[in-house]
Amino acid sequence: MVHADASTFSSNLSKKEVYARVLEQAEALFEGQSNWVSNLSNASSLLHHALRSLPLPSSAVNWCGFYFVDPARPKQLILGPFQGHVACQTIEFGKGVCGTAAQSGKTQLVGDVEAFPGHIACDGASRSEIVVPIDQLGKVVAILDIDCAEVDGFDEEDQAELEKLCDLISKSSVFPFTLDRLHA
Amino acid sequence: MVHADASTFSSNLSKKEVYARVLEQAEALFEGQSNWVSNLSNASSLLHHALRSLPLPSSAVNWCGFYFVDPARPKQLILGPFQGHVACQTIEFGKGVCGTAAQSGKTQLVGDVEAFPGHIACDGASRSEIVVPIDQLGKVVAILDIDCAEVDGFDEEDQAELEKLCDLISKSSVFPFTLDRLHA
Repeated sequence: MVHADASTFSSNLSKKEVYARVLEQAEALFEGQSNWVSNLSNASSLLHHALRSLPLPSSAVNWCGFYFVDPARPKQLILGPFQGHVACQTIEFGKGVCGTAAQSGKTQLVGDVEAFPGHIACDGASRSEIVVPIDQLGKVVAILDIDCAEVDGFDEEDQAELEKLCDLISKSSVFPFTLDRLHA
Repeated sequence: MVHADASTFSSNLSKKEVYARVLEQAEALFEGQSNWVSNLSNASSLLHHALRSLPLPSSAVNWCGFYFVDPARPKQLILGPFQGHVACQTIEFGKGVCGTAAQSGKTQLVGDVEAFPGHIACDGASRSEIVVPIDQLGKVVAILDIDCAEVDGFDEEDQAELEKLCDLISKSSVFPFTLDRLHA
């Protein structure tokens, strides 16, 4: 049975060890479960608690969650499961850091959000951000979005590990946008 | 635009005032947005931060979120959006506090989970629990589940206010189980 301890991380692990454990736990959580809402809900909790167990800047992560593509409006992201304070419910493709990741299909690693053209400030406390797209059948179906209250909260190691997690999510979960295309 | 401050609660508000603000904010968040995933994600954040701003026992809330009914397996709950540590992904109707609420359609206010027959201990730190069903067209489509690390974490006032919130969620959001019935 899934246990809350799966997202309890001891504070003496390195970033490399923490991400290895996130990937291992995520694989176990997704085993036999393809529901995207359930998988994204547990993934956001796992990742949030993992990052906050690390030293600064990772411990200053203040929002960690997902937006997904609405099959009815395929150029719009809708708020999905997350950990943190309430957030913007819809984001157009191309707008802000999330919309840019969704439109380009490429990870956005932003050291200082105030320097990002068109940044959407849901939370004024956020200073840096990483957004990783989740692809299925060649299309972006969702994005992982993490905010940090420190500048330069994320580096290339975060990017590489988060891209692995998003690959795993893509392989494990059926998203509404993909389901809609398969039924079209 | 939605702002993170919507889920920031000053610590000098009474429980009555906090719940009034939760209902007011939830109404504003759901305005023009019927996506159940988006609405439950913001509702769990709003409620979690609201309860934790209050004195004990409310400040000891350690999990706050939703399970929903899978149209493909209508006697099973699946994990939905939440705030807290990772949680059990599926719960059968009739099992534990959540399954009992789903089966009976009635709020379960449990002062001591260890005394509840068949309690599912996702997190050993949880000592009391409240589970409120969300109905649509006469059927339970989801449940709101809140755990507290103190015994007797919830009272009749919580029950009455949370039932109002669940009514609002029901009126504002289209759930997969309802959609499936409408298309059947």
